[in-house]
Amino acid sequence: MSSYHPLTEQEAIEIAQSIDGFFPAGASLSCKEIGDGNLNLVFHITDSVSGKSLIMKQALPYAKVVGESWPLTLDRARIESEKLILEGKLAPGLVPVVYKYDKELALTVMEDLSDHVIMRHGLIGGTRYPLFADHISTFMARTLFFTSDLGMNQQEKKLQVKTFINPELCKITEDLIFDDPYTVTPNNNISPAIADAADALTRDGELHFEVALLRDKFLTNAQALLHGDLHTGSVFATPESTKVIDPEFAFYGPMGFDVGAVIANLLLNYAGQEHWSADDLARSDFRQYLLNTIVDTWKQFEEKFRALWNEHGIDRLANSAPGYQDFYMRRLLQDTIGFAGCKIVRRIVGLSHVADIDRIPDDAKRERAQRLALEIGTRLIKLNRNAASIEQLIEEVKAASK
Amino acid sequence: MSSYHPLTEQEAIEIAQSIDGFFPAGASLSCKEIGDGNLNLVFHITDSVSGKSLIMKQALPYAKVVGESWPLTLDRARIESEKLILEGKLAPGLVPVVYKYDKELALTVMEDLSDHVIMRHGLIGGTRYPLFADHISTFMARTLFFTSDLGMNQQEKKLQVKTFINPELCKITEDLIFDDPYTVTPNNNISPAIADAADALTRDGELHFEVALLRDKFLTNAQALLHGDLHTGSVFATPESTKVIDPEFAFYGPMGFDVGAVIANLLLNYAGQEHWSADDLARSDFRQYLLNTIVDTWKQFEEKFRALWNEHGIDRLANSAPGYQDFYMRRLLQDTIGFAGCKIVRRIVGLSHVADIDRIPDDAKRERAQRLALEIGTRLIKLNRNAASIEQLIEEVKAASK
Repeated sequence: MSSYHPLTEQEAIEIAQSIDGFFPAGASLSCKEIGDGNLNLVFHITDSVSGKSLIMKQALPYAKVVGESWPLTLDRARIESEKLILEGKLAPGLVPVVYKYDKELALTVMEDLSDHVIMRHGLIGGTRYPLFADHISTFMARTLFFTSDLGMNQQEKKLQVKTFINPELCKITEDLIFDDPYTVTPNNNISPAIADAADALTRDGELHFEVALLRDKFLTNAQALLHGDLHTGSVFATPESTKVIDPEFAFYGPMGFDVGAVIANLLLNYAGQEHWSADDLARSDFRQYLLNTIVDTWKQFEEKFRALWNEHGIDRLANSAPGYQDFYMRRLLQDTIGFAGCKIVRRIVGLSHVADIDRIPDDAKRERAQRLALEIGTRLIKLNRNAASIEQLIEEVKAASK
Repeated sequence: MSSYHPLTEQEAIEIAQSIDGFFPAGASLSCKEIGDGNLNLVFHITDSVSGKSLIMKQALPYAKVVGESWPLTLDRARIESEKLILEGKLAPGLVPVVYKYDKELALTVMEDLSDHVIMRHGLIGGTRYPLFADHISTFMARTLFFTSDLGMNQQEKKLQVKTFINPELCKITEDLIFDDPYTVTPNNNISPAIADAADALTRDGELHFEVALLRDKFLTNAQALLHGDLHTGSVFATPESTKVIDPEFAFYGPMGFDVGAVIANLLLNYAGQEHWSADDLARSDFRQYLLNTIVDTWKQFEEKFRALWNEHGIDRLANSAPGYQDFYMRRLLQDTIGFAGCKIVRRIVGLSHVADIDRIPDDAKRERAQRLALEIGTRLIKLNRNAASIEQLIEEVKAASK
């Protein structure tokens, strides 16, 4: 079973039984394939007697992202598995535990998190996650700091850059986030109702200039090992627990891209509350909760990142040069705001949308949510290099919401 | 002969004879090892009858850079050879032709340039190189542009980043250029006469801040495939010809590091003219020639780089965003000035000095040259992020020379 082929459910069970000590000997396992069949097979394997279960994720050698089949190397399974294992060391408890990785089969066997829900769906359903800001800020501070030139051996970091060169998945981001929304292309997915706003994006020179700078950072700035796709659909959550999943987009890039992804997706939910909250008071209350979560996430991230730097910083000059840490953190905030803006815009006019907004059944409300998201996104992109505090982001959101 | 061992002269001759069609059949070749025995063996192989000759460079698995022997992987020979071959394609005529590369032996067989002299020695001897600015600006514009995200396929670029990960050689730069000169360490090499000026470098917070930012760019900014050590000792020149050699420090880094290296070494010679020029008039005349060469190098580089971008730019947004090219070129000038400053400073107080200054026999003149170089270097570092034109660099040099 060691040469690559898509597994059957029976084969998945056999592999699960071979993992030493996980299931009781002789357990009668059941298996269900629960993936969407697009990029990966996902097997859920359970033992009803012991109550134990696990997940097996196998990469498929193609994707159906843009209508037709699109070949993808299985190397992304290696990247995902190696990144998950590293995250588990740097941020234990905040990612699923990996039990086994089989390179030949492009297969990762990991902790079953079916007691959690995808956070995006939780937020749409009005669930609050009071520990999320604490958890995600810890996850980001630790995974970003300890993979950067501030927190790890700088020669080993270069070898890690090499391990995580990820051209195929980066290309998806480069096209879908940093190009398509600003030009006319059939890859875009634009509601006719907002055609005027989408068209304006293609003619806004100031916006293009800022996006070009952010695209350049994404292409060239090997600052830390990113998750690379850190939206609320990549987070399994309960009010008590946060687990970050699916790091197949991992590569060395600018830290603000991960932090910005979290903030962008909270703001997309904010825009979608146009509909999801039952009445004006509930909407305004949930929106305030989301804004508070954004501020808490940034502030706790900054505090934790600085604390790690002060305790574990390995770069003599970065540790000692007066004002350098403050400059670094301000630049990181600016990047965060800029990338957050790009991630919002692409979810409104680009190929891939979010349920927070697209599933609003009422046409007028969905259009209002889309326009609000675009207004927030473009404001953040234009603010980015001038920002000095997270409160400025909140001010832009409030100004856009008026 | 395929497993690694340092070659004897006889073995070198046998390899030379095996290169199809280079030497006439049955030629009686002579061989001389002309390296300094420190990092590489260099064999000069000639056929007195045909007049043909070639150079064989073999990497040694150690270096004697810091007194004791220091192990170095032979992978640097692969990097050097692959970079030379790529440079030969991108900038034909401006690098030695590679005839053969033997990975096992860490051996590169290349064009003999013994009709050229090392440009540093030429400049010390008062030779002018009227075509140098044209040649080196072409070399830099083409090698940097066509290996960047502006000028090559962005997914292939990522694979090239991987090929040229070069931790060992980068560490030498990180330590010797971006750390040691600003702290107290036995790695430094400081003339007692300038102990006060060297000490001031260790206590200048503004300087440390700027150097920390430049160090960060060197560590994280995978902008283009650099030569990585582009000083006037890496250039073989005649008044009519320029050949760039020794790219073993090649890696993906900030473009300004290469451009700054050229300018820094012209300025080190400028500072050394304190002695090398026979009289005041000759000195001032040669110095003006050097400053003109710096201005010409930058201006021609910028013009050629922009022309390549306008004709061959592959990044839609970078090509079309209003003002982006101007911003990019200004930032590149700023990086160039900052890196030039760092490269000057390290040649005065760091481990490795330059003959332009160190070989000045008169103590007082050498000290004046060292102090002038340090003054120029620190001024450029402090100028870098505020610079908008190459003339500002010239003004700083003139102010330092008063």
